[in-house]
Amino acid sequence: MEYSSMNKAQLQAEYDAVAKDFEALKAKGLKLDMSRGKPSKAQLDLVSGVLTALTTPEECAVEGTDARNYGELAGLPCARRYFAEILGCKPEECFMGGNASLTLMYDTISKAYTHGLLHSEKPWAKLDKVKFLCPAPGYDRHFKISQSFGMEMITIEMTENGPDMDAVEEAVKDPAVKGMWCVPKYSNPSGCIYSEEVVERIASLKPAAPDFLLMWDNAYCIHEFEGDFVPFPDIIGLCEKHGNPDMVVEFASTSKVTLPGAGVACMATSEANMKYLMKLMSFQTIGYDKMNQLRHVRFLKDKENTLALMKKHAAVLGPKFAAVVDGLERELAPLGFASWSHPKGGYFVSLDVMEGTAKRTVALCKEAGVVMTPAGNPFPYGKDPKDSNIRIAPSLPPKAELEAAVEVLCVCAKLAALEKLLNK
Amino acid sequence: MEYSSMNKAQLQAEYDAVAKDFEALKAKGLKLDMSRGKPSKAQLDLVSGVLTALTTPEECAVEGTDARNYGELAGLPCARRYFAEILGCKPEECFMGGNASLTLMYDTISKAYTHGLLHSEKPWAKLDKVKFLCPAPGYDRHFKISQSFGMEMITIEMTENGPDMDAVEEAVKDPAVKGMWCVPKYSNPSGCIYSEEVVERIASLKPAAPDFLLMWDNAYCIHEFEGDFVPFPDIIGLCEKHGNPDMVVEFASTSKVTLPGAGVACMATSEANMKYLMKLMSFQTIGYDKMNQLRHVRFLKDKENTLALMKKHAAVLGPKFAAVVDGLERELAPLGFASWSHPKGGYFVSLDVMEGTAKRTVALCKEAGVVMTPAGNPFPYGKDPKDSNIRIAPSLPPKAELEAAVEVLCVCAKLAALEKLLNK
Repeated sequence: MEYSSMNKAQLQAEYDAVAKDFEALKAKGLKLDMSRGKPSKAQLDLVSGVLTALTTPEECAVEGTDARNYGELAGLPCARRYFAEILGCKPEECFMGGNASLTLMYDTISKAYTHGLLHSEKPWAKLDKVKFLCPAPGYDRHFKISQSFGMEMITIEMTENGPDMDAVEEAVKDPAVKGMWCVPKYSNPSGCIYSEEVVERIASLKPAAPDFLLMWDNAYCIHEFEGDFVPFPDIIGLCEKHGNPDMVVEFASTSKVTLPGAGVACMATSEANMKYLMKLMSFQTIGYDKMNQLRHVRFLKDKENTLALMKKHAAVLGPKFAAVVDGLERELAPLGFASWSHPKGGYFVSLDVMEGTAKRTVALCKEAGVVMTPAGNPFPYGKDPKDSNIRIAPSLPPKAELEAAVEVLCVCAKLAALEKLLNK
Repeated sequence: MEYSSMNKAQLQAEYDAVAKDFEALKAKGLKLDMSRGKPSKAQLDLVSGVLTALTTPEECAVEGTDARNYGELAGLPCARRYFAEILGCKPEECFMGGNASLTLMYDTISKAYTHGLLHSEKPWAKLDKVKFLCPAPGYDRHFKISQSFGMEMITIEMTENGPDMDAVEEAVKDPAVKGMWCVPKYSNPSGCIYSEEVVERIASLKPAAPDFLLMWDNAYCIHEFEGDFVPFPDIIGLCEKHGNPDMVVEFASTSKVTLPGAGVACMATSEANMKYLMKLMSFQTIGYDKMNQLRHVRFLKDKENTLALMKKHAAVLGPKFAAVVDGLERELAPLGFASWSHPKGGYFVSLDVMEGTAKRTVALCKEAGVVMTPAGNPFPYGKDPKDSNIRIAPSLPPKAELEAAVEVLCVCAKLAALEKLLNK
């Protein structure tokens, strides 16, 4: 029976039962964690080949370059070709970074502030106000970069097909709106894929700001855990086609392909942007770690081989996501107060509990020994206006722990909802 | 006979002879390079152990952390302890970066501009003018960072004991002077070591700017190629002792210990600075490549073992530096118009040719097939006011090539001097 159909006595009876369940779970003294999009040890062990990809000086030579020494600001050509194949863009459009695309993103925003972008009239630090579009729920680390630089973040509602484009098209008429954060495939945290129509509308935006910056974080571009690889458009080519050749900077990495702490990151953008940004980057680095680039190219080889590896990751991840969604389905679906996403890739499930109870649910989980991502985290300024969203990260715990954690989460969501309905 | 003692006829005769030598060298069609402080293949081959330091998943575990996964923003504790031992500071004062200390330096300056430092009244981007002290000749990449951010660079004369401290003490009375670049040991390019007195005077500066930033690039802190390891003071402790606990940020790396393109970098500073900067860095990264940190700790072990490795580098580098200095001594000393440094560590020899002839000398070298660092490079804005300094980088070429290159350099320096004396 749905909670909304229960009378007060029924709600009270349900509350008594759920509170008892909660106390029983608490008594177990659990220590579980569904807070972080961290691959598990089983996934890391899939890629041990990357540890032995370069073990002799001879193996460090590639196409006339010694990967051990200085040089090649944009990265090894073979690494640029590798990412170009994955992203569907040109090798000349790829710049190889260090171990994190997050750093490349931060640095791009930082350079917009200190030096300006290719089409900036002045560095953003010289502007009174910089506004940025934040489709939410979204990735908290994106929003924290924006916040750190003092941007005014404008929340854009996420639909199951991507950002609400009517709102985006309206917002970009303001010249102070300087860009937008996007995770176009398996968006963090809902796992939705931006529809073809949404991507076309994004690529053909006509922003008032000449230096509007589309931060295209393609973090999960090959990260299916269910079903076959889903092709995605080349956003760089698409922006060019629509007269916005320098509007987008795309980011990707092998953090969830090989090693999260020691993968390689890539930034891809138009050749004109590349030329402009490379000049700025030449002050910051002589070039990122080419040994790690070469290790990765030797181990991952090409897109086909990488997709085969992603199937192995999927074999580890798929059952975990199924356990989460099955648990929610079984425990919460009949009660009618919650909804959740059904992703086929990425690293998260987005759960919406009863409005006004997300924080309370997460606090109850903590009481019962289950760490969740703080409620509100996926929203600008860490504030969920409805206090209903909870991000679930199923990747790290083993399946048995995960099932136990989902059980706790469901009981806590129920308890929080009942407290609200009963004004407790 | 010294050129200054020659009469016109003698100079003309010398010119004719040297011009003939020059033509003969040109005819050889040489292709030599003394422009870059790049280790040679022989040095890279000394450290192949770093390639096999981590080859199994088990080896990636250290003190409860899996180096393969996310985490540890400041770096692995064992890596922080390693650098603390090298630098003589505390592990808590060390932050582990990626493959380049240059990037950590750029990022520190960049954060001063975008967010301000611990004691900044406002971000430097909001100031009308930022001035920076540049002891010169110095490291061109330092000055290029300053230039890129639009700083006004103030040249400070380098003596054989370090920067002219009278000039520095006077300059820091201006609150717009926000910092100073220093390479305290085997300074780039002269190879001088700052004297104890100079370092004490630096540590006890009383700058008008509350956020004065001492950029202490300890790039060559263990890089002797002649003689035993020369101890150096802990600048962080020294600044603290003199009431400037948060004035200095120190940088070091293994770029010239293990692999130039794939070493690990470290930034060291007071714990108060560390706390402030770590918060800013938490927006930029989840943590730099811990696998490479662990590879290095496993391979380098500790200071003692590292110093033993540096002796092996010295065995490769020492004869090359000797070849350069011997060549200069033999060819130029009797002529009295040039002088050069006699470093015992670092990567460069600083040559002063006749005033007004450095650019011409480098151009002649190029004509004869020898690439030198562009004249003027070691000075702010790339302009050597005397046009006399040339940076020699002996590390990359094999010894035979190096001897040939030094011969060319000496002939070109003579020819340029004679052209000037004869008004050709």
